[in-house]
Amino acid sequence: MNKGKFIVVEGIEGAGKSTICNVIVDILSEKKIKSIITREPGGTPLAEQLRKLIKQGVEGDKLIPKAELLMIYAARIQLLDTVIQPTLAKGIWVVGDRHNLSSYVYQGAGRQIELNLIKTLSHQIIGDFKPDLTIYLDVTPEIGITRVCKRGSLDLIEQESLCFFKRVRELYLHIVANDNSMRLIDATQPLQQVITLLRITLINWLSGQII
Amino acid sequence: MNKGKFIVVEGIEGAGKSTICNVIVDILSEKKIKSIITREPGGTPLAEQLRKLIKQGVEGDKLIPKAELLMIYAARIQLLDTVIQPTLAKGIWVVGDRHNLSSYVYQGAGRQIELNLIKTLSHQIIGDFKPDLTIYLDVTPEIGITRVCKRGSLDLIEQESLCFFKRVRELYLHIVANDNSMRLIDATQPLQQVITLLRITLINWLSGQII
Repeated sequence: MNKGKFIVVEGIEGAGKSTICNVIVDILSEKKIKSIITREPGGTPLAEQLRKLIKQGVEGDKLIPKAELLMIYAARIQLLDTVIQPTLAKGIWVVGDRHNLSSYVYQGAGRQIELNLIKTLSHQIIGDFKPDLTIYLDVTPEIGITRVCKRGSLDLIEQESLCFFKRVRELYLHIVANDNSMRLIDATQPLQQVITLLRITLINWLSGQII
Repeated sequence: MNKGKFIVVEGIEGAGKSTICNVIVDILSEKKIKSIITREPGGTPLAEQLRKLIKQGVEGDKLIPKAELLMIYAARIQLLDTVIQPTLAKGIWVVGDRHNLSSYVYQGAGRQIELNLIKTLSHQIIGDFKPDLTIYLDVTPEIGITRVCKRGSLDLIEQESLCFFKRVRELYLHIVANDNSMRLIDATQPLQQVITLLRITLINWLSGQII
């Protein structure tokens, strides 16, 4: 049995990541490939508790950037060791709503923690594990955040400034342009067009894989 | 105004750390030195939430050692940046019920995470910050755990095996023997004798400090 593949969807708030994760599972299912969805930070009972602390905060105690980074990596290694790796080992694919790249762009570009610190930490904690394919859904922060605002009350990340998300997007674009395991999809288009583009991208990539 | 000093009390469960922290505050107070007590993991609203997750666990999701380590450092940097450093800057002393050394012995010797990984992480997160004085209360695990059992229900750390605590103590002893900012006190003795020894040790150390 072949090991499952790990496909990650990345992008800023309002890019449409969770919708696209579901579409990927459907496309894989058409190809008779079983898959599950994970989300980060989160995806295990403990990691979900950490997600809650990060996204909702604790009254009277503003989370400092390095503590946030460490909590995110704690959640990540818990998810990787107890869910992602065992699932892939069974030949089941995993579709991740965010993974390691999010820490580079959010904690690095967004919170302005040195990228070298994140790189070292990442290497120490998850080693050389990386997604087989990353779909980056590109939207401008203006469009992404407008979409998020329509959903209702905002969490602590969604409340960040436009400048924060501009820095995040800039680093996403830079990294995606320099990594051939990543594909950029213009997610400012209407959803149906995004899905069509995703389908083409995914099927094209699948045709090059030994499954 | 001089910066405050950071005194840490270390030792395994049942060594008497919290009692001794209070005694240290009293002795400092006799010398007209203001101080506060912190505990780790914990000491801020957010860090206390992390402590709860570490000590009580989350049902159906056993915390893996690396995730525990990262959560402990998240709690530590949150406490250091928001409580310990600002307090010391005001000239107030801090008496810590555990600090960085606990991660070396518990996560390193206890959980058997490579010490080099902990060392690098520690350096990345807290830099070269270290206590001015560490009081290590030495008890055998047999004595320490017997004392803890009398207190009532045990948390996840207290439930660890005797072998776990033997490894922890062995590394404590090794490190304390090689660091002249640390003092060992035999805490198997009756409390009054431990307090007498502590008083002598602390007053002796204070006499060498510029306050």
